[in-house]
Amino acid sequence: VLTNPRSDRVKAVRSLSRRSVRSRTGQFLAEGPQAVREAVRHAAADVRDVYVTAQAQQRHPQIVAAAHAAQLWVHEVTPEVLAAMCDTEAPQGIVAVCRWSGPGLDEALAALPPDAFVCVLTHVRDPGNAGTVIRCADAAGAGGVVLTGASVDPYNGKAVRASAGSLFHLPLALDPGTAEVLDAVHRAGLLVLAADGRGELDLDDAEDAGLLGAPTAWLFGNEAWGLPADVAALADHRVRIPLHGRAESLNLATAAAVCLYASARAHRRG
Amino acid sequence: VLTNPRSDRVKAVRSLSRRSVRSRTGQFLAEGPQAVREAVRHAAADVRDVYVTAQAQQRHPQIVAAAHAAQLWVHEVTPEVLAAMCDTEAPQGIVAVCRWSGPGLDEALAALPPDAFVCVLTHVRDPGNAGTVIRCADAAGAGGVVLTGASVDPYNGKAVRASAGSLFHLPLALDPGTAEVLDAVHRAGLLVLAADGRGELDLDDAEDAGLLGAPTAWLFGNEAWGLPADVAALADHRVRIPLHGRAESLNLATAAAVCLYASARAHRRG
Repeated sequence: VLTNPRSDRVKAVRSLSRRSVRSRTGQFLAEGPQAVREAVRHAAADVRDVYVTAQAQQRHPQIVAAAHAAQLWVHEVTPEVLAAMCDTEAPQGIVAVCRWSGPGLDEALAALPPDAFVCVLTHVRDPGNAGTVIRCADAAGAGGVVLTGASVDPYNGKAVRASAGSLFHLPLALDPGTAEVLDAVHRAGLLVLAADGRGELDLDDAEDAGLLGAPTAWLFGNEAWGLPADVAALADHRVRIPLHGRAESLNLATAAAVCLYASARAHRRG
Repeated sequence: VLTNPRSDRVKAVRSLSRRSVRSRTGQFLAEGPQAVREAVRHAAADVRDVYVTAQAQQRHPQIVAAAHAAQLWVHEVTPEVLAAMCDTEAPQGIVAVCRWSGPGLDEALAALPPDAFVCVLTHVRDPGNAGTVIRCADAAGAGGVVLTGASVDPYNGKAVRASAGSLFHLPLALDPGTAEVLDAVHRAGLLVLAADGRGELDLDDAEDAGLLGAPTAWLFGNEAWGLPADVAALADHRVRIPLHGRAESLNLATAAAVCLYASARAHRRG
């Protein structure tokens, strides 16, 4: 049982709340039973250590059993040690240190099934938004998520929590060059659709015209200022979600949900 | 120019951050240029006072001109007074004290156009979620939003901000009795569809079957535990959003966006 909240190991885990440390070590922290369960279930090879309190072991026996079955290191810790490791105010007794061995962009694109759609985020700054969009992309059946431009690190604690485990369900690629990413996406044969409130195409019309049935990369911009015109111009079409009331726009996550589910319907109906 | 941040007037405005004061006075605070602009534009009769700093007056001349044109009281205040009135850490120089003279439920239902759809939230606890769903409902063209059960007060500062002005765009009704609300909705001739991850109907199938073209009330439950079975049972159908990947669910706001836009499509296509 680890009992010393001031040990080097505890400090090393705690330091994963800093992006610089995550970048240098290639590791991040998954906090809470949902994230740890999904990590163990779907990405066990990327889990380095599981830390769990006695109480959480009793509350989540299946997670602990699955971690043992996957031959992972499971360490019992005191509540004080767990709190010292964590970013959250109310850690739920279980965390996992994970490696982010995400595929490179080209590798991720090469591995896509022929009728896939993916989600590209550029300059998305809020970790909660990034995590929520990753969760939506997973739910809608997207083949992956690419974060580009000055987007937030999806391995940030808040992003991991907002993704509700979806981070471990689909390929995530990180690549800062938006134009290069869209180039690669085009070379992989995907149609690039930019979600853009000033877009020339209405989403319903795009769906009716059969555009959404193609292998597609949906491009979403910053939560406050959207896509700059020069970036939107790199897409094949700019698509606006129809606004039937008086709202000026949707927020990023709800807009992404509407667009990604439109693609899901089109692909399902094939 | 109001200069005393400790005046009774300032304290009275500040006290609107408390639900009990909002209930007693029937007033709430709209903070920031977007909320104040939409209040002045779409609900001027409900605006009691506008407070604005000299700097914000220069930055938002149209809002101030519109407030004057609507014969509203516009008070210049110092930045210290404005900060003392506000809930937010970074007030943007302009706020409005508004009355919530929302229609009663029966009145709101009677005023619905014949092909409307509405959104009913029960036990939604997070103000950001409530505001975001109100914004989505507005964007999708819903005829109103009803908050029932132990739902958060939509006139809470965070809810007002998350609604991005949509609070002033469509009728909001507050009524704590969920069963009574669903009764009234049924009597008004609306089909009640509960968004429920364990629902017997797939959303795409419901759309294909033409169910969504009816006048509809979408029922959404608590962000963490959804709809209790006895409440879901009061709906005509329980509809699940298809989950194509490995995500267990969507969050409330994105689920609402997908469902409300499905109704918007069905109503648009007639």
